[in-house]
Amino acid sequence: MVEMVFPEQTSHYGSLYGGNALAAMGKAAFIAATRHCRKAVVMASSQRVDFDNQIQKGEVVELIPRVIKVGRSSMTVEVQLCAENLQSGERRPCGHGTFIMVAVDAQHRPTAVLPSAA
Amino acid sequence: MVEMVFPEQTSHYGSLYGGNALAAMGKAAFIAATRHCRKAVVMASSQRVDFDNQIQKGEVVELIPRVIKVGRSSMTVEVQLCAENLQSGERRPCGHGTFIMVAVDAQHRPTAVLPSAA
Amino acid sequence: MVEMVFPEQTSHYGSLYGGNALAAMGKAAFIAATRHCRKAVVMASSQRVDFDNQIQKGEVVELIPRVIKVGRSSMTVEVQLCAENLQSGERRPCGHGTFIMVAVDAQHRPTAVLPSAA
Amino acid sequence: MVEMVFPEQTSHYGSLYGGNALAAMGKAAFIAATRHCRKAVVMASSQRVDFDNQIQKGEVVELIPRVIKVGRSSMTVEVQLCAENLQSGERRPCGHGTFIMVAVDAQHRPTAVLPSAA
Amino acid sequence: MVEMVFPEQTSHYGSLYGGNALAAMGKAAFIAATRHCRKAVVMASSQRVDFDNQIQKGEVVELIPRVIKVGRSSMTVEVQLCAENLQSGERRPCGHGTFIMVAVDAQHRPTAVLPSAA
Amino acid sequence: MVEMVFPEQTSHYGSLYGGNALAAMGKAAFIAATRHCRKAVVMASSQRVDFDNQIQKGEVVELIPRVIKVGRSSMTVEVQLCAENLQSGERRPCGHGTFIMVAVDAQHRPTAVLPSAA
Repeated sequence: MVEMVFPEQTSHYGSLYGGNALAAMGKAAFIAATRHCRKAVVMASSQRVDFDNQIQKGEVVELIPRVIKVGRSSMTVEVQLCAENLQSGERRPCGHGTFIMVAVDAQHRPTAVLPSAA
Repeated sequence: MVEMVFPEQTSHYGSLYGGNALAAMGKAAFIAATRHCRKAVVMASSQRVDFDNQIQKGEVVELIPRVIKVGRSSMTVEVQLCAENLQSGERRPCGHGTFIMVAVDAQHRPTAVLPSAA
Repeated sequence: MVEMVFPEQTSHYGSLYGGNALAAMGKAAFIAATRHCRKAVVMASSQRVDFDNQIQKGEVVELIPRVIKVGRSSMTVEVQLCAENLQSGERRPCGHGTFIMVAVDAQHRPTAVLPSAA
Repeated sequence: MVEMVFPEQTSHYGSLYGGNALAAMGKAAFIAATRHCRKAVVMASSQRVDFDNQIQKGEVVELIPRVIKVGRSSMTVEVQLCAENLQSGERRPCGHGTFIMVAVDAQHRPTAVLPSAA
Repeated sequence: MVEMVFPEQTSHYGSLYGGNALAAMGKAAFIAATRHCRKAVVMASSQRVDFDNQIQKGEVVELIPRVIKVGRSSMTVEVQLCAENLQSGERRPCGHGTFIMVAVDAQHRPTAVLPSAA
Repeated sequence: MVEMVFPEQTSHYGSLYGGNALAAMGKAAFIAATRHCRKAVVMASSQRVDFDNQIQKGEVVELIPRVIKVGRSSMTVEVQLCAENLQSGERRPCGHGTFIMVAVDAQHRPTAVLPSAA
């Protein structure tokens, strides 16, 4: 997942606060968990998320989610946040965190995760 | 801080994933920390954030940030996320989390937090 | 209700025009009126709204709505718009206006406002 | 000026509140006043704005601004808000209001309006 | 159709890429085609779109769509993209393109275009 | 590049018109061309873009750009648009198009593309 940071989003990712970076990481965790179980999924919690570097204006943000643990109805998804300077090609890690996603049925109750083949 | 959840935002807060709830909580932490130290502030990390209840379409989201610990350059901000059904007036907790915010100088280096009078 | 003005919104609130400030004030009137009557509410009209000061980039906007008059099906809501400079803590009034909100039933016809206990 | 109301904006224009309709009307007033004087312009106040009809989902919103009075540094702009059902072609008035716009110099002080040739 | 380009949208229209200009042109084609046939309409393809000039920050974008050919179920809509500098009043063409829009029935199958009277 | 289509964006990608799909494809072309030449890039034109299938609500949109031809200062980028149903895992092509991107210098004049090592 690749996302560009245009001037108007700089404050969200950049020097002001990490709220939008959290949102993008949660979205990546959501897609990875749903692809794993092919069921409806909700976020139960985010574990510690660390921001190592600020993202700069004009950079591309890359989100790399990975399902690292699967319980009966929960999936633990680790998400790396990287920034790439489009002009220089330089890439550097900017943050990483872990999210607990839960598969739910039509009544929003936890349901079993059956691992997908993919 | 009060924020309304209109139909078009339901999927962000609602049944799909918690990414936008995280963003709103981070924004509340940012405002509380900046008001505490009256300096530029960045998010160093979010600690565990739990989502207890889903927010429904047409509800108002209330964010209640509180600075609970102050270090030399860091502030720990706890944020409660509540939902209020505008028609019934019923309110219920939906999530809570903790964010580590750091005061920075013009070169983005950590700087001392001096408690504000307010 | 507190809202931050990030760089990318400056033109909306700031030196260009007051359209988005009107939208934020109308939203505050909507929440205050709905909380008063706990019914569906529509805006029938906005009365005179004056903008005394421009809001600057990096400021927090605070909206303070107050139900000042209640008719059979209408509520008059006064909204103050204040700006707070997050770094200095200085606050100053930026605008104030009055909005007529009407309680409506499921067919969008005016219905009686029964004052809530809160 | 024509603007479409897509499903995700319905609540803004539609049954919930008039805040976004106010924003769109203020934007139309801003463009009309700037075209009149070809100077920087700010909104000093909005006069009474009435909403006669609700705008429905899937309708096109048309904004018709008209400079109706010119003072030394101020311009009074009347804005009509119409809705057009794209399928039936039916059009109906939905609101009208008046906005006072002021020409300003580089220091944001009122400056003389010199009527443009256009 | 008139649209303002505020600072926060500059990168979309401006020096970075033409993606948002394409979106605005497609929206204009959609409205023109729907007004022509008063039926549901989808975009089947965009033909060559050329961008002659960059749009600058603080300019108004004008979109001028014109239905130039009507087939059994398709409409060919040409869209001109112009920029107007609000301060100087200068206008210049910035792009033009052609879009094939198709009238569809409730099952999303192509249906006959019957020219509207308007 | 993966992008989710949430309920509130359905009308943009979905049954109404292809404008936002064009914008997303142009953004993918922009990133691919910039990564190829590591210089500033503008869109000179979009060639024919065909939409074969409608994207549905709740689907993930995948954009696959590929630089297929390099001239002195221009790059031709082909972009595939695919939709993936997150629940079933089914994927299907929804559109494809070609974009001409031009490397520019600081004065926005075309400049030579020197192929990157990557």
